[in-house]
Amino acid sequence: MFRAGFRVPPDGRRDEHPATLPVMSILRLALAQVNPTVGDLEGNAELVLTRSAEAQTAGAGLVAFPEMMLTGYPVEDLALRRSFVDASRRALVKLATELARRGLGELPVLVGYLDRAQHGAHRPGPSSPGLPDVGVPPGSPVNAAAVLHHGRVVGRYAKHHLPNYGVFDEFRYFVPGDRLLVTRIAGVDVAVAICEDLWQDGGPVAATRLAGAGLLVVINASPYERSKHDVRGELVRHRARQAGCPLAYVNLVGGQDELVFDGDSLVVDADGQLLGRGPQFDEALLVLDVSVAQARDADPTELVPGVDRVVVAGTRQVGTRQAGTRQAGTRQAGTVVARLEEAAEVYAAVVTGLRDYVDKNRFPSVVLGLSGGIDSALTAALAVDALGADRVHGVSLPSRYSSSGSLADAAELAQRTGLHHRTVPITDLVAAFDDALGLTGLAAENLQARVRGVVLMALSNAEGHLVLATGNKSELGVGYSTIYGDAVGGFAPLKDVPKTLVWQLSRWRNARAEAQGETPPIPEASITKPPSAELRPGQLDTDSLPDYAMLDAILEEYVAADLGATDLVTAGFDARLVQRIIALTDAAEYKRRQYPPGPKISYKAFGRDRRLPITNRWRERS
Amino acid sequence: MFRAGFRVPPDGRRDEHPATLPVMSILRLALAQVNPTVGDLEGNAELVLTRSAEAQTAGAGLVAFPEMMLTGYPVEDLALRRSFVDASRRALVKLATELARRGLGELPVLVGYLDRAQHGAHRPGPSSPGLPDVGVPPGSPVNAAAVLHHGRVVGRYAKHHLPNYGVFDEFRYFVPGDRLLVTRIAGVDVAVAICEDLWQDGGPVAATRLAGAGLLVVINASPYERSKHDVRGELVRHRARQAGCPLAYVNLVGGQDELVFDGDSLVVDADGQLLGRGPQFDEALLVLDVSVAQARDADPTELVPGVDRVVVAGTRQVGTRQAGTRQAGTRQAGTVVARLEEAAEVYAAVVTGLRDYVDKNRFPSVVLGLSGGIDSALTAALAVDALGADRVHGVSLPSRYSSSGSLADAAELAQRTGLHHRTVPITDLVAAFDDALGLTGLAAENLQARVRGVVLMALSNAEGHLVLATGNKSELGVGYSTIYGDAVGGFAPLKDVPKTLVWQLSRWRNARAEAQGETPPIPEASITKPPSAELRPGQLDTDSLPDYAMLDAILEEYVAADLGATDLVTAGFDARLVQRIIALTDAAEYKRRQYPPGPKISYKAFGRDRRLPITNRWRERS
Repeated sequence: MFRAGFRVPPDGRRDEHPATLPVMSILRLALAQVNPTVGDLEGNAELVLTRSAEAQTAGAGLVAFPEMMLTGYPVEDLALRRSFVDASRRALVKLATELARRGLGELPVLVGYLDRAQHGAHRPGPSSPGLPDVGVPPGSPVNAAAVLHHGRVVGRYAKHHLPNYGVFDEFRYFVPGDRLLVTRIAGVDVAVAICEDLWQDGGPVAATRLAGAGLLVVINASPYERSKHDVRGELVRHRARQAGCPLAYVNLVGGQDELVFDGDSLVVDADGQLLGRGPQFDEALLVLDVSVAQARDADPTELVPGVDRVVVAGTRQVGTRQAGTRQAGTRQAGTVVARLEEAAEVYAAVVTGLRDYVDKNRFPSVVLGLSGGIDSALTAALAVDALGADRVHGVSLPSRYSSSGSLADAAELAQRTGLHHRTVPITDLVAAFDDALGLTGLAAENLQARVRGVVLMALSNAEGHLVLATGNKSELGVGYSTIYGDAVGGFAPLKDVPKTLVWQLSRWRNARAEAQGETPPIPEASITKPPSAELRPGQLDTDSLPDYAMLDAILEEYVAADLGATDLVTAGFDARLVQRIIALTDAAEYKRRQYPPGPKISYKAFGRDRRLPITNRWRERS
Repeated sequence: MFRAGFRVPPDGRRDEHPATLPVMSILRLALAQVNPTVGDLEGNAELVLTRSAEAQTAGAGLVAFPEMMLTGYPVEDLALRRSFVDASRRALVKLATELARRGLGELPVLVGYLDRAQHGAHRPGPSSPGLPDVGVPPGSPVNAAAVLHHGRVVGRYAKHHLPNYGVFDEFRYFVPGDRLLVTRIAGVDVAVAICEDLWQDGGPVAATRLAGAGLLVVINASPYERSKHDVRGELVRHRARQAGCPLAYVNLVGGQDELVFDGDSLVVDADGQLLGRGPQFDEALLVLDVSVAQARDADPTELVPGVDRVVVAGTRQVGTRQAGTRQAGTRQAGTVVARLEEAAEVYAAVVTGLRDYVDKNRFPSVVLGLSGGIDSALTAALAVDALGADRVHGVSLPSRYSSSGSLADAAELAQRTGLHHRTVPITDLVAAFDDALGLTGLAAENLQARVRGVVLMALSNAEGHLVLATGNKSELGVGYSTIYGDAVGGFAPLKDVPKTLVWQLSRWRNARAEAQGETPPIPEASITKPPSAELRPGQLDTDSLPDYAMLDAILEEYVAADLGATDLVTAGFDARLVQRIIALTDAAEYKRRQYPPGPKISYKAFGRDRRLPITNRWRERS
């Protein structure tokens, strides 16, 4: 749909061997990687105002904010509510006015928001031309960007490529745009793209080259995944070379339900060389001077099919010079923040997701059961790092099967981290049910977990804490948890963290504390002892489950890579073990449906990333 | 994308005033509205074999099965697993062979299944031509139909229009087809379309006319919604007139997690006149004689762009005649099953959804708490109708606040329906927690509900029952339920039934019993007394909530119609009440995320039909 709207200008505005070298300018560019909250239009607009003021003070000629900055991302079915779309549009106009009122009207501001399709925009694909698909009302929502200047909305752009895989459902909400926006800022043509536009071949990146733009700014709401930042960095370099100009990539930070946005904004030159990179998981305003080619055509408003052109006059520029070679001698400056190592990165992602879930939903504090085991110990350490020890309440809930070692480990954890700690023995409570119902076996084991759940929820109701579930991804995979028992909670920090990674993160966290001369938060015994649910005498996880290293390896291939049983056996896993783990995983789907949300850190998390029927008789066979 | 593939034949194969009248045949058509199970490839194939044998015995010249018959629908992310797609393809080939082996090879069988895109099929829209979108692996899944004959797969068709709204995510899974399949059966050209293809203008319906087909068969997996069948009937009539030939519509029946398929298959002639209609919610083989125009062109294999033509030779036909007028004098026969009245239809939908969830997941029985109130009474009546009284276990769980009237009403319900009934007093269990924690207010109220949940789950674990949650849509909307308390359950029959409809269905069910000379299942007192959760002395629902008629009216507009606060006030609702109900509804999102599945009966159900963020600061204001 897109390519049809563009034509290569007959005179070849930019080719690989230009007859004359372009005149280069230095543009001082500001990228605001900030943390909006979904639905908080006023608060998010205030973030734009604050960061725009900083950018102006820093002498920036342009400031860019992430995708859907004004609304937060993802807004999900709020996009289908007309009152919300209208409010986003009004908030944009008000923001433009307010920027001018605060003396920031000279600074061009690029910002993502939710808009309605204008005339001519339509969903491509199966429908007849001009007819919206079923389910898409007139004035369909678009994922949009706007340029604000001198108190007005001077340019608008609608995202072309709508992701509809993994956690993304953008075809459900948006109609795609099919035009490019080029804004001339201090003589430099700046093109805009939104997130997925960068990941797809053709489209806005190719159009940026055809339109002869001097800079491509891509605004993003790109969630964190382990190892994704390398893919992202490589992609940005590649696309800059394709666009033939420097490329600036600005991303959200912060948690939103199951997603964590990691920032990691970056700028590369036309050769893909890194000029600047922001921090991961922290808010920041990146300011850097980028050498950009000045526009050559005298009349920027000439009509080029498929391109909307806007001129922003009067904006300052840092300097102009004739380019000697493409790069040499240009003044460019930017900070490159070092990447986190993998354990630090994952840990920071979970802390961010947890902190923002608690704070954005305005919970004063959290409460969790402390078993003395590694899952609750790591969850407590994460909570203390996210919220401070004073907002974390740990409860030991010993039954007749709890070992004295476990109680001591929980107490030591509390002492090391400084969290609030209390003990509520459940022996008598469990006995009351046993007297009434006479339970044995699995029913008796689950009963203990459920009594603990009732106690934690009672404390939550009485004292206002959010309950944290402490289960990990391996348990959730094979259903080794009790629904309405240890699965109780409003948020589950380890939901996407497999058991082997739980141990790795715990060791890393303790090692970091030692390196910094602090007390390691997690008792050594919690890390080294064999895992046990302690729901019957002498119980060990390995009674019911294979070794966690093997379990996690098979789950990774089955869940993330969607391999079938035959593929798993071909890959070298034991056939009987594969059969057993797949059977357990399939049978636990109903438990996962009722599990609380938790931060996605992997390529495929349980939750809306992986959507399987509960009623499902398909059985993998090798 | 679609229209480009078709051209009107230069000689105008069919126009509105043909120079010569077509030769008419009578085709005996069989539509199998059956109930497959997702993932049960072998069981579903056996359904095809059984119904095909019946169709052959009835003398049919063609039998058609619903969309995704072999795999069940929706398969969700199973479509992304290569092993499952391969298994579906193998099952199709095996089915063709087995049909022939059982002496059914002469009968053309049209059946829906899951396939992979063949060469040339691609996802239209934003991607560059030839490049799959991100997230779509090579050999992308297609929602397909096949014609089986003489032991072989003789024709294949891929759905063109992929719904991606409401409960549908087909863009996540499938690439669309762009070709028409026309099969010449006994001299009659039969075109095929799949479900959404019928709902979209243009596309296969228009192509059917251009291709000069004598019959259009549409295979469907179209879920039930209140009042939808009228829309569906109107649409079928309209599309038949557009296609210029009779149209046969065959739909699934049965429950699949939150969806209920209602059958309601129908056949209309080229003028849209109803020729036959199947029952709602029951399996059936519709057999009827349809007058269809014979194909005129001598060589059906001629190449027409965008149309795949297949000839099925040797199939019997009932009779041939020259048409006098379009309809007059043709022999056509079919049964038209009368439509259910609305309450009967909704009741049947819930029974179907409940029965299939229990049976397809192989639960022997269900257990539910009986409070004496209307929700648990209706749920019990539904369960007894779905499963028989012997598979239903009701438990009275009286606390110190339970009235003697409530206990008597529950006992009377048990006596009227014949379900298994026992009493487990919770007073001492609640007291044990009170002693340990000293709870008051909401925490103490929720505690009672959670203790009941623990008891029901213990009985489930010990005895193997599926727990039914008894909450209704109104409560779930405003969060008037206790998470891990009365929300406990594997299935929630009333999840999409508002309180006012709960009363209506209860009255209707009792009236039906009386009309049939049976004992009305629901005690009159449960219907007429003011609703109360009985969690504190003298508590009534109206202490916390507005009148249910008003609540349901506002919820319907806010949830189903997505109206904002201003729209609601404009529509005449009280501004303060609107504000309060919206605030309660928004705040309950986290509870709904952990609520069990239940059958969708409305235009918009809670569940995957309505996807809102939990973390959401948007507040509607009027």
